[in-house]
Amino acid sequence: MTDTPHRRGADRTEAIMRITLELGQEIGYAKLSIEAVAARAGASKQTIYRRWSSKGALLLDSLLSLNEPDLDYPDTGDIVADLRAQIHSAVDLLARPPFGPLFKALIGEAQHEPRIAAALNERFIAPQADKTVARLKTARDQGQLSPAFDLDLAMAILSGPLYFQFLITQEQLTHEYVDRILDALFTGMGPGHVR
Amino acid sequence: MTDTPHRRGADRTEAIMRITLELGQEIGYAKLSIEAVAARAGASKQTIYRRWSSKGALLLDSLLSLNEPDLDYPDTGDIVADLRAQIHSAVDLLARPPFGPLFKALIGEAQHEPRIAAALNERFIAPQADKTVARLKTARDQGQLSPAFDLDLAMAILSGPLYFQFLITQEQLTHEYVDRILDALFTGMGPGHVR
Repeated sequence: MTDTPHRRGADRTEAIMRITLELGQEIGYAKLSIEAVAARAGASKQTIYRRWSSKGALLLDSLLSLNEPDLDYPDTGDIVADLRAQIHSAVDLLARPPFGPLFKALIGEAQHEPRIAAALNERFIAPQADKTVARLKTARDQGQLSPAFDLDLAMAILSGPLYFQFLITQEQLTHEYVDRILDALFTGMGPGHVR
Repeated sequence: MTDTPHRRGADRTEAIMRITLELGQEIGYAKLSIEAVAARAGASKQTIYRRWSSKGALLLDSLLSLNEPDLDYPDTGDIVADLRAQIHSAVDLLARPPFGPLFKALIGEAQHEPRIAAALNERFIAPQADKTVARLKTARDQGQLSPAFDLDLAMAILSGPLYFQFLITQEQLTHEYVDRILDALFTGMGPGHVR
């Protein structure tokens, strides 16, 4: 792309998001401010506020700029292997600074700020849920998923145990944990068919 | 109990916790302060700080004073019915002020404050997990649970989807949602035995 005003705007946007993540990692979410980002970026506060209404909105965009391609589902024809690969990527992202600690802080903020919760859902959770459901539908058509499984629950059931560990117990998320959760979910808690 | 100094101390503690919840409901967690609680309770800030190191610690105790008896598991001999009844109670608690909004705010705070996260786990999550595992062990002994089901995962798998809805999508938690989640977890996502 040539050096058009549009291109320069995009470069500026990218630079601001990169600086948001850098500074967030250095000083933590609580101390991060639009003023500090503006100062380091050599931009005015107005330039930032023109595009982002709050620190939370700026951080959400900055985080999303890091991860989107990572979280697509592979389709090797084996649903358990593909879920495992995708959720391993998600867990790697959550375990890694700057994404992990800043995403955790953003979810914390979403408990006090309904606008951040809404943006998080619209921009991150809903698209992830759509991808999950699409991959599971293919698996169901191939007989790899219970025909009775309610796809509307898929995101809550698959990601709920991860968010529980990430936000509540705050223990380290590992690939092994993902594998155990998937085993349990696919097998089911019930005693199996009575023979 | 007679009106001993010990009894008066307990009354004072209860009054402070009751006022914390009242005031939290009126003005929200963000504006709640130990100073404001002390003022309404006619106590000194020192009296409160002697017992609670922070606003988060005081709120956690105040919330726990509301709910503990509600969240025990019944044992009717039917594990799905008993889980359903207990999780319905949990969902009712989460849906109801002052518990719901203040518990959500406390979890938000736990994302920034490791001490609050640790207290939340030690005082609330771990005891709930112990009760859950104890009830599921009985069920397993009675053949109502898959013998392969890893009890260490029980809390994450059963409560993860609730916390996901409570903290992330922030949609209303309903009994119907609980029932659908339990059905899905007991049946399992897998296609079942090939015949």
